[in-house]
Amino acid sequence: MTFPQQRLGELGERALLQRIRDRIPAGDGVVVGVGDDAAAVELRGLAFVTADSLVEGVHFRRDLSPPRLLGRKALSVNLSDVAAMGGVSRYAIVSLCLPAGLEVAWVDSLFDGLLERAAEAGVSLVGGNLARAPETIVVDLTLLGEGSRPTLRSGARPGDVVAVTGSLGAAAEGVLLLGQGARLDEEGDLVATGIWTDSSADAVAACLRAQLDPRPPLALARAIAEHDLARAAIDLSDGLSSDLLEMCRRSAVAARVEGRAVPVCGAMASLEGARGGDSLARALHGGEDYELLLAVDPARFEELQELSFVWGVPITGIGEFFEGDPVVIVRDDAGEHPLAPHGHDHFPSPAGDGGGA
Amino acid sequence: MTFPQQRLGELGERALLQRIRDRIPAGDGVVVGVGDDAAAVELRGLAFVTADSLVEGVHFRRDLSPPRLLGRKALSVNLSDVAAMGGVSRYAIVSLCLPAGLEVAWVDSLFDGLLERAAEAGVSLVGGNLARAPETIVVDLTLLGEGSRPTLRSGARPGDVVAVTGSLGAAAEGVLLLGQGARLDEEGDLVATGIWTDSSADAVAACLRAQLDPRPPLALARAIAEHDLARAAIDLSDGLSSDLLEMCRRSAVAARVEGRAVPVCGAMASLEGARGGDSLARALHGGEDYELLLAVDPARFEELQELSFVWGVPITGIGEFFEGDPVVIVRDDAGEHPLAPHGHDHFPSPAGDGGGA
Repeated sequence: MTFPQQRLGELGERALLQRIRDRIPAGDGVVVGVGDDAAAVELRGLAFVTADSLVEGVHFRRDLSPPRLLGRKALSVNLSDVAAMGGVSRYAIVSLCLPAGLEVAWVDSLFDGLLERAAEAGVSLVGGNLARAPETIVVDLTLLGEGSRPTLRSGARPGDVVAVTGSLGAAAEGVLLLGQGARLDEEGDLVATGIWTDSSADAVAACLRAQLDPRPPLALARAIAEHDLARAAIDLSDGLSSDLLEMCRRSAVAARVEGRAVPVCGAMASLEGARGGDSLARALHGGEDYELLLAVDPARFEELQELSFVWGVPITGIGEFFEGDPVVIVRDDAGEHPLAPHGHDHFPSPAGDGGGA
Repeated sequence: MTFPQQRLGELGERALLQRIRDRIPAGDGVVVGVGDDAAAVELRGLAFVTADSLVEGVHFRRDLSPPRLLGRKALSVNLSDVAAMGGVSRYAIVSLCLPAGLEVAWVDSLFDGLLERAAEAGVSLVGGNLARAPETIVVDLTLLGEGSRPTLRSGARPGDVVAVTGSLGAAAEGVLLLGQGARLDEEGDLVATGIWTDSSADAVAACLRAQLDPRPPLALARAIAEHDLARAAIDLSDGLSSDLLEMCRRSAVAARVEGRAVPVCGAMASLEGARGGDSLARALHGGEDYELLLAVDPARFEELQELSFVWGVPITGIGEFFEGDPVVIVRDDAGEHPLAPHGHDHFPSPAGDGGGA
């Protein structure tokens, strides 16, 4: 017998591993799953592989992120990367660093979310690793996918449409809302609006969900890859201003964005409006949207919009790439001006842009 | 310009990433390497995948492990897992959690070791992730390999020979020696014998190297897989007593080990002899040997020994599997007695064996 209130240090590593393994279903293509020296899996075509970590105190706070949602997000941020490459995600490997004082229930709940999200995405959990951490929880996930043609960041050409899926800025708004006392429970339901009144509850919940449980447009991404509709793609994790500049650098082109065309998230805009904030700035710089930024041949943009209707995910043309040194120009009411990237830097440099190496 | 004495927080994440990427050579089979949303690589047959973390304060101490050797070890512990499955390692993905106060030179040196070990093993570094950590360094590595038939832990049959490669106990002795002030430098050369006199220098260096820079028998493992000579295999990471019991449990057999047959590392034995310790106990329980434990059809043991001569790695038959409930029996001067596992448990349970789930 074990009790969820138990701490990991009371349960022991072997029992915790067994507890996790017992929950993992058999998966399609999994020849050897968790529990041996390595997993062995079937893959067709090229293998796509990516890894991303969620570090306590940096990417999440234990008191703000319900562990079930954290488990979902650990997978989602990687699903987003494989989708942006035009791949189909198949297998996940999870490495956890866990303090001995952590409740077993927390780990159970993390795996509730991971396994549920994996089932939604058609991904099998095939292995991983468990290590004691002195204090800080680290959830590191490596995702394996498959595909035929990787869509790179470097394929944008002058004249291509700058396109984004979904709407932007809600996830960054979610960070602010958490700081203002708004909370979701394990199920993703709103349990506290913080400093906001109940009339804002729907908007608050939408932004918190965007932050704590992002849903990258996986089916649409797969359709775009199958129809070879993107010349270049990147997932919007650092923020449009950073990620578009990154695509420009890789593709050796410049980009011009129409400020009015940027799909600002309505829920975020209503809250920013109430606080007198700048919703366009949040959409441009916010980060963690896990939408796709695409470079699209203008001759095929209509085809792309048809897919958008089929899959129920908006795709918006927000500007175009043009010949020039890598730079992002925004055109708004004040005219044209270069957009400085304000994406997240884990080791901020005093110089601001982290350059210099 | 950057300076190795710089701290990561002064350099910035983007510059650090660029600094790392600039060092990574193009690799065979790598269609898309580091720097895009995901890597894309070629794999033949089944994909083998494993992950292992080195956590500061748990698996290493910054003042005891030169970072170059730590980089080598982070790869080696995973190479060992893929080798035990009968696979050939191809691609590595590295996730790092790094405190902002860490010197850039430390990270450079970690990658010196990682890239050098990768080149030795024919592995390409294709991606990874960099996150700020509040305090503790975490080096998490996922390794992708390929192969046709995975060798499982569960294939041992009654009558099979219990065989181990190399010799045992040096890595565990290395932990003791580090505690006694013995040290290697970045190059793996002995710079301090600690409490030991110079006459023990060679033995001290050998045990420190086994701990800080383990060398799993990769070429031999590949040959064993090609000739299909192992019915079951596991790499010796937790210690012979734990890992053999694990193989027994998975294979639903018992094992008897001849104490006198266990290949005790000579360097370790000389030091244990000097301190009046029990070298057999250290060989049985020590852990981190990263040798192979095999179940071998007795009719093919001679063939296996021929491979051992070819590859210059000793293989020793130390006992046999027999029908019975999973247990490991040791026969020594005191007769036959069950061997309790003393392997490492990151979350030690008060019950001792971590069981109960």
